Amino acid sequence: MRPFLSTPFDDDKLKEECGVFGVIGVTDAANFVALGLHALQHRGQEAGGIVSYHPDSGFNSARRFGYVRDNFTKADVMETLPGSLAIGHVRYSTAGSKGATAIRDVQPFFGEFSMGGCAIAHNGNLTNAAALRKELIERGSIFQSSSDSECIIHLMARSIQKNLSERIKDALRRVEGAFSVVAMTRTKLIGVRDAHGVRPLVLGRISDHGWALSSETCGLDIIGAEFVREIEPGEMVVIEGNKVESTRPFTPAPSRFCIFEQVYFSRPDSILGGRSVYETRRQIGVELAKESPVEADLVCPVPDSGTPAAIGFSQESGIPYAMGIIRNQYMGRTFIEPTESIRNMGVRLKLNVNRALIKGKRVILVDDSVVRGTTSRKIKDMILEAGAAEVHFRIASPPTAWPCFYGVDTPERAKLLAATMSEDEMRDWIGVDSLKFISLDGLYRAAGEAAGRDAKAPKFCDACFSGEYPIPPSDKLAEGFEMKAAE
Amino acid sequence: MRPFLSTPFDDDKLKEECGVFGVIGVTDAANFVALGLHALQHRGQEAGGIVSYHPDSGFNSARRFGYVRDNFTKADVMETLPGSLAIGHVRYSTAGSKGATAIRDVQPFFGEFSMGGCAIAHNGNLTNAAALRKELIERGSIFQSSSDSECIIHLMARSIQKNLSERIKDALRRVEGAFSVVAMTRTKLIGVRDAHGVRPLVLGRISDHGWALSSETCGLDIIGAEFVREIEPGEMVVIEGNKVESTRPFTPAPSRFCIFEQVYFSRPDSILGGRSVYETRRQIGVELAKESPVEADLVCPVPDSGTPAAIGFSQESGIPYAMGIIRNQYMGRTFIEPTESIRNMGVRLKLNVNRALIKGKRVILVDDSVVRGTTSRKIKDMILEAGAAEVHFRIASPPTAWPCFYGVDTPERAKLLAATMSEDEMRDWIGVDSLKFISLDGLYRAAGEAAGRDAKAPKFCDACFSGEYPIPPSDKLAEGFEMKAAE
Amino acid sequence: MRPFLSTPFDDDKLKEECGVFGVIGVTDAANFVALGLHALQHRGQEAGGIVSYHPDSGFNSARRFGYVRDNFTKADVMETLPGSLAIGHVRYSTAGSKGATAIRDVQPFFGEFSMGGCAIAHNGNLTNAAALRKELIERGSIFQSSSDSECIIHLMARSIQKNLSERIKDALRRVEGAFSVVAMTRTKLIGVRDAHGVRPLVLGRISDHGWALSSETCGLDIIGAEFVREIEPGEMVVIEGNKVESTRPFTPAPSRFCIFEQVYFSRPDSILGGRSVYETRRQIGVELAKESPVEADLVCPVPDSGTPAAIGFSQESGIPYAMGIIRNQYMGRTFIEPTESIRNMGVRLKLNVNRALIKGKRVILVDDSVVRGTTSRKIKDMILEAGAAEVHFRIASPPTAWPCFYGVDTPERAKLLAATMSEDEMRDWIGVDSLKFISLDGLYRAAGEAAGRDAKAPKFCDACFSGEYPIPPSDKLAEGFEMKAAE
Amino acid sequence: MRPFLSTPFDDDKLKEECGVFGVIGVTDAANFVALGLHALQHRGQEAGGIVSYHPDSGFNSARRFGYVRDNFTKADVMETLPGSLAIGHVRYSTAGSKGATAIRDVQPFFGEFSMGGCAIAHNGNLTNAAALRKELIERGSIFQSSSDSECIIHLMARSIQKNLSERIKDALRRVEGAFSVVAMTRTKLIGVRDAHGVRPLVLGRISDHGWALSSETCGLDIIGAEFVREIEPGEMVVIEGNKVESTRPFTPAPSRFCIFEQVYFSRPDSILGGRSVYETRRQIGVELAKESPVEADLVCPVPDSGTPAAIGFSQESGIPYAMGIIRNQYMGRTFIEPTESIRNMGVRLKLNVNRALIKGKRVILVDDSVVRGTTSRKIKDMILEAGAAEVHFRIASPPTAWPCFYGVDTPERAKLLAATMSEDEMRDWIGVDSLKFISLDGLYRAAGEAAGRDAKAPKFCDACFSGEYPIPPSDKLAEGFEMKAAE
Repeated sequence: MRPFLSTPFDDDKLKEECGVFGVIGVTDAANFVALGLHALQHRGQEAGGIVSYHPDSGFNSARRFGYVRDNFTKADVMETLPGSLAIGHVRYSTAGSKGATAIRDVQPFFGEFSMGGCAIAHNGNLTNAAALRKELIERGSIFQSSSDSECIIHLMARSIQKNLSERIKDALRRVEGAFSVVAMTRTKLIGVRDAHGVRPLVLGRISDHGWALSSETCGLDIIGAEFVREIEPGEMVVIEGNKVESTRPFTPAPSRFCIFEQVYFSRPDSILGGRSVYETRRQIGVELAKESPVEADLVCPVPDSGTPAAIGFSQESGIPYAMGIIRNQYMGRTFIEPTESIRNMGVRLKLNVNRALIKGKRVILVDDSVVRGTTSRKIKDMILEAGAAEVHFRIASPPTAWPCFYGVDTPERAKLLAATMSEDEMRDWIGVDSLKFISLDGLYRAAGEAAGRDAKAPKFCDACFSGEYPIPPSDKLAEGFEMKAAE
Repeated sequence: MRPFLSTPFDDDKLKEECGVFGVIGVTDAANFVALGLHALQHRGQEAGGIVSYHPDSGFNSARRFGYVRDNFTKADVMETLPGSLAIGHVRYSTAGSKGATAIRDVQPFFGEFSMGGCAIAHNGNLTNAAALRKELIERGSIFQSSSDSECIIHLMARSIQKNLSERIKDALRRVEGAFSVVAMTRTKLIGVRDAHGVRPLVLGRISDHGWALSSETCGLDIIGAEFVREIEPGEMVVIEGNKVESTRPFTPAPSRFCIFEQVYFSRPDSILGGRSVYETRRQIGVELAKESPVEADLVCPVPDSGTPAAIGFSQESGIPYAMGIIRNQYMGRTFIEPTESIRNMGVRLKLNVNRALIKGKRVILVDDSVVRGTTSRKIKDMILEAGAAEVHFRIASPPTAWPCFYGVDTPERAKLLAATMSEDEMRDWIGVDSLKFISLDGLYRAAGEAAGRDAKAPKFCDACFSGEYPIPPSDKLAEGFEMKAAE
Repeated sequence: MRPFLSTPFDDDKLKEECGVFGVIGVTDAANFVALGLHALQHRGQEAGGIVSYHPDSGFNSARRFGYVRDNFTKADVMETLPGSLAIGHVRYSTAGSKGATAIRDVQPFFGEFSMGGCAIAHNGNLTNAAALRKELIERGSIFQSSSDSECIIHLMARSIQKNLSERIKDALRRVEGAFSVVAMTRTKLIGVRDAHGVRPLVLGRISDHGWALSSETCGLDIIGAEFVREIEPGEMVVIEGNKVESTRPFTPAPSRFCIFEQVYFSRPDSILGGRSVYETRRQIGVELAKESPVEADLVCPVPDSGTPAAIGFSQESGIPYAMGIIRNQYMGRTFIEPTESIRNMGVRLKLNVNRALIKGKRVILVDDSVVRGTTSRKIKDMILEAGAAEVHFRIASPPTAWPCFYGVDTPERAKLLAATMSEDEMRDWIGVDSLKFISLDGLYRAAGEAAGRDAKAPKFCDACFSGEYPIPPSDKLAEGFEMKAAE
Repeated sequence: MRPFLSTPFDDDKLKEECGVFGVIGVTDAANFVALGLHALQHRGQEAGGIVSYHPDSGFNSARRFGYVRDNFTKADVMETLPGSLAIGHVRYSTAGSKGATAIRDVQPFFGEFSMGGCAIAHNGNLTNAAALRKELIERGSIFQSSSDSECIIHLMARSIQKNLSERIKDALRRVEGAFSVVAMTRTKLIGVRDAHGVRPLVLGRISDHGWALSSETCGLDIIGAEFVREIEPGEMVVIEGNKVESTRPFTPAPSRFCIFEQVYFSRPDSILGGRSVYETRRQIGVELAKESPVEADLVCPVPDSGTPAAIGFSQESGIPYAMGIIRNQYMGRTFIEPTESIRNMGVRLKLNVNRALIKGKRVILVDDSVVRGTTSRKIKDMILEAGAAEVHFRIASPPTAWPCFYGVDTPERAKLLAATMSEDEMRDWIGVDSLKFISLDGLYRAAGEAAGRDAKAPKFCDACFSGEYPIPPSDKLAEGFEMKAAE
């Protein structure tokens, strides 16, 4: 008998691969990092790690599979992480390699150099990592993980700079791609964002003696830190004592923040550009209602990520908002491989239709995105089986037609529904009465660009929708990936 | 260093103590029970157990602390539970005894009788259990648990009936209080509700060969069973093969279903009296907006239990609904005892204010109930600290002024805020601009009683609000509990 | 791939089913019990349990599968067992039920009576347990375990005596068979041996304030207790404060101590009748060399149980003693079920031949007993494969031809090699040059009876060799077991 | 309450730091390695690791703390180690670093090179590792462990050889010290011993298709492999398919096999130089009886390591051999740090005196060595407390006066009893009637050198007794260690 309660994975979602957090100037810094990582858990649920430094015991590290709350709340773990300086990391596994991920792939990575140790946590993805790795191995480096981020440590080891901050600069100047890095030496907390600023990173103040770096502002809130400012694209900050030193180590480049952070990745209570992510998402719903109205009885979110846009859609359209689908709040992450038959049952474990409410109604379902489309089909089935009269899907992002190479786990292009079908074909394949995506311009408007997308100089990285990659994905090109033909 | 990420317990909520589930007539029945218990996890998160029967191996049992998803998804556990007949139970610990709860207190309980074995799972609370236990021990029974429900098994053992179903009747006729019981013999699945029908129990059909009993309809949905009907107050059903035999073993009594199931315990997608619980809760919000309107900019639920009423309040009042407070979806159940300082920090681990949204706004917060009031104070602090201009609390239940003795974990009366303070005093103690509870009549109206509460013959058990106990709490009276003076 | 390192069970040995230990009058009594049980681990390796009593927290219990050293050395377990009074138990599973043994079968058993709680640990076996169990269930008792020892608790519950010590007497007067019982109430430590005194039990003094009861004297040594005396057959001692009260509750009967305790079960450093068990076993080797001499180059023990007799054999015969077979001291108890092919390999995991020593030699192997004979064959194969010229087996006990019903795990009679074969047939089946068992008279002489066995009134229970059962095995007879025909 | 059953560590013994094992040419090679490591467990009990290679899944690795039998018998671990080529390692922690040992220090170590991967397991100690490590870090290598053996991998990475076998040679030519290395590439199993051959390594044949390398012959016995020959000092064998290629990569040096392997480290059933280790140890007892006779009643071994020498002493002296001290065979390895008071109690947990045997007797105790002397004192206390008339210690090795730098965990010199006291002073400090060590010449004679030790060209490394180090301990000299002054 095979147990069949399983598969809580959001299999049909794009996945942020990482969250990073660091703290300096507080007693038991690792406790703060644990809290910060807990707040950033949505950015990576597979594993987490914390490194701390204490003058008596040096650098200490703990890396674990599973949730922060299950690992970094235990006294016997936290006692091994003393000191007033610590950094941490949460991660997803990368596409296709779930089984192979070993604990040695879990960050932060650590290197012992002649001038002392340095730990590094990286959010993003390096687009030339394969080439760098090959070169480094040929020159005598021993890689301990399958993670591309380990290149940074080996590049530092090869640097001839006398100073660890300078070695970080040396190393990051050699890498291409997207990175928000939090690093620590024995005395310094360091934060860096790549020149395009693809991934987020913010600075916070803890009382009057400490500092924090976090992927998102929600990581500051949980420890009661005050939001100071975003680290800017291309900026490096080195924090020691009360001093925050800022430099610009990289060739300047246009800012291209990931627009999917606005749509899905970031937590709704995080603040981007002075506005809550929730508000941007609600505004997406408003735009969507304007662009693609439809007559119906209820507007229901696909929980939980479709909720803000559904609220906005309801407010703009005047159609009542309702919880037509209920999420089981006790779903977790289990490691049992589901059988095929259970995979198909998967959605029922996590979601249930509020059937007495739905029966006989024309229902608008608002979801954040369509990736493979498999979940959308199952949800449609559930809603129809419960007796809905009509089902209309409204999607809070444009069709996802291109893979991301900057730190998001995307299926290969051929598996993206929008890469092979038109909107109408998708509607028919999913089997709903109507299916509409927000336009790219509408999305930009909702994100605060009143004029929509400037095709010459788009404010965001929207490669997953547009196929326009701001940074050439050189490893992938070498493997044969074909970029969109220039028009 | 003591780790301080902890305390996800909803410390300031009333807690349902149990959920029960049973299945007959399907291969690997224990798998279905695991799914059903997973859907009922909100009714009890401390521990769970499953008993199954297979002709080859007899009765088998597994009882574990923790979530269903963590215990009853493992092949090595489920393989020990073969057979086409199984029942299960999820439970909270009872008030004050958290530390002392042992695995032997986890149901189902099992007894071997001369005519064969019988397993029993009980949702509710027996009000004369202490007296029964004393009597049984004096007559030579050995109790293995501290659970009152074990009395049922010993009463069965003392019965002179030749038949297990008859022995269950004998036993249940001796107990007082609230009970929805699911039991199994080698061939029969049995369901019983007490004469007042305080706790829920429903019957479902699995394809054309199996049957299920579940505390709520959401347990039927997850296994794809069809909802047949509620087991009626005072009814006993004995299911064998395709036959469902119904009897009425108890003296008839007026139906007094627990109204707090409507307010908080049951899942919003469950169906009670033909209407979704969600809809009843939304209607509570509508009633509340009519009874206690206030000018404001936003209506925000205290997640997640306040959500339906907040939607209703917004729809009735026209004030926009917004997610002003965000719940960390990765909170779980940890076993670390939090320090006092962290207990106070507790709410921040679970909830965060959407500060960019709240700042400068007049905010209406809708919560399901106020028990001790401690959570309400913390939420108020968070909202004000984020810069709200005004904070108005609207509560989707009347003041909780009396303890429950029918299967809900309530603080002793002196710790209930409403037992010692008027509404205005509570408002001042919590520190908000206004605080209003729905009236008892309003709650009855929302629950479908257009005329409100009939003081002569109330349709529900509302003892926690009214102090009118439909079943005398005899053990508690013996201990000195003082009932409300007759008026 | 199936791992094949496994099966450390001594599959071809008779197994003592239990060891008992109790302590009163010392701080943290459970720690002393853990030590005592560790010293008695050879009497039962499957599981262990400890119950302690402290006025603040009442009776506390911990029961675990596995070794004492792995379970009862952990602070988080031992902290749950406070108090100055504690008892404990180690056990083997009974024949054929390995898979079915549940933690609820692990002793001590506990009962809550109207005059207070009582815990009981039992070494031995009740020969009328099945009949008692049936009767008790019919009268309304609920059994929680499959252990026969639980009858004692239920018989106590049915007693009308006001006093727990008296209830123990009542209960034990109803049972038949072999028992050495250690029990405790809130204030008393109690020890009892059946009228024949089949199983051992000794009394020790801890400094000038405490007392200990132990199955063997080695349990006293480990805690530094002074050996006072053996509890006598048919005696009950009740210890409270500094007072040891002795009574004789049972009808007097001739003493029939288990002779296999001398041969194999008891530890060689334990003292029985004023002489070390080691010395008795060495003397068995001396007798064996006198009875069955043979020319050879080396005398080698089958480790570890054959060692003392091999030393005696060497000393009497003048043939050099040598370690021809080496035991891997890192064998433990694992729970992996071995495949058939590995079972056959089993002996190599535990034992290895000292091949450079054995090659070309005539070897006498001294083992304690032959049960199924399977191990003897494998050892013979190993020795011959290593190049021995001749192999002679000398066995330190008579042929084991009858099952034990008094607390030893024996195969059914048909599986005992000596039940179906003569000594010569056994020699041929095992495939050795000679095979000789000590005579029953020789064994009695070695055990201190200079005149050998008195057939009219044998001093020991030797039923496994003689088929003469001092206590009628009534449950077994009811099942159809055939006793040896009277001659 | 602190549990006090603990400390099974042989605290007062020298400890071998490692055992290595490798297999090629058999299905599920990792299973064979697990068995081999189990047989070598006495060489290292802290942790173990296995690496295997399968063409489908590449190199796989599992490293665990604890016994082989507890980790590498589990299906879920072994299934991750497929393939017909595997190597493994068991290890002790090095002196003083117990707490700090991390799983990343557990071998085999693995490196990915441009021509493929290579795993290495090392028994021994590199005497210039600190200098090498410093140099490698300065040149850009990132160390992942605190183990000196990791240098080998980094030296390989720096080699310009195109072939992994050649890179191993390059690397090992740079290291100084003692090493027996087992390594593997995707197709080859490789074994190497340093030029002096300090640590053992043997070659075995598995049926007609496989090969094994093992630290000792007992590792061959357990898998049924046939002993072929010892790998010679300075030899490297590269095994692929049926071909064993032998080369001599190092400058020739005189053979200096560790004499303590004869005295204590190797298992008694292993074969060194055609003779069983047991026989050599028995012969030590014979020599000792000749050199230092004494009148007594009994010769008792300190179990288990003193047993063979005690047998020899008894046989030479004619004084009866007896088991005066019994070892608890259920001692294991626990991780609880014992309190000081329990450390003192430690010996009683593991050893117990056979008091009925010892009382009034003159006892000769034979032990393998005296390191700190603390255990000897405790044993003497036990024996006297049991009533012995006289206690005479006979030690099967010369006084241990110098630390080992070649792979054995020795206390610093000041803590070695023999470094600061004469034999008479030691006798008085331990408190026995006489104390005699075997002479260095006597030890050589027992080990097969009829003429005793050739001071010009000793056959063994006996630095721990003589202070004559065959390989200069350069790291230690740099730290200030003072070698014995030349005479």
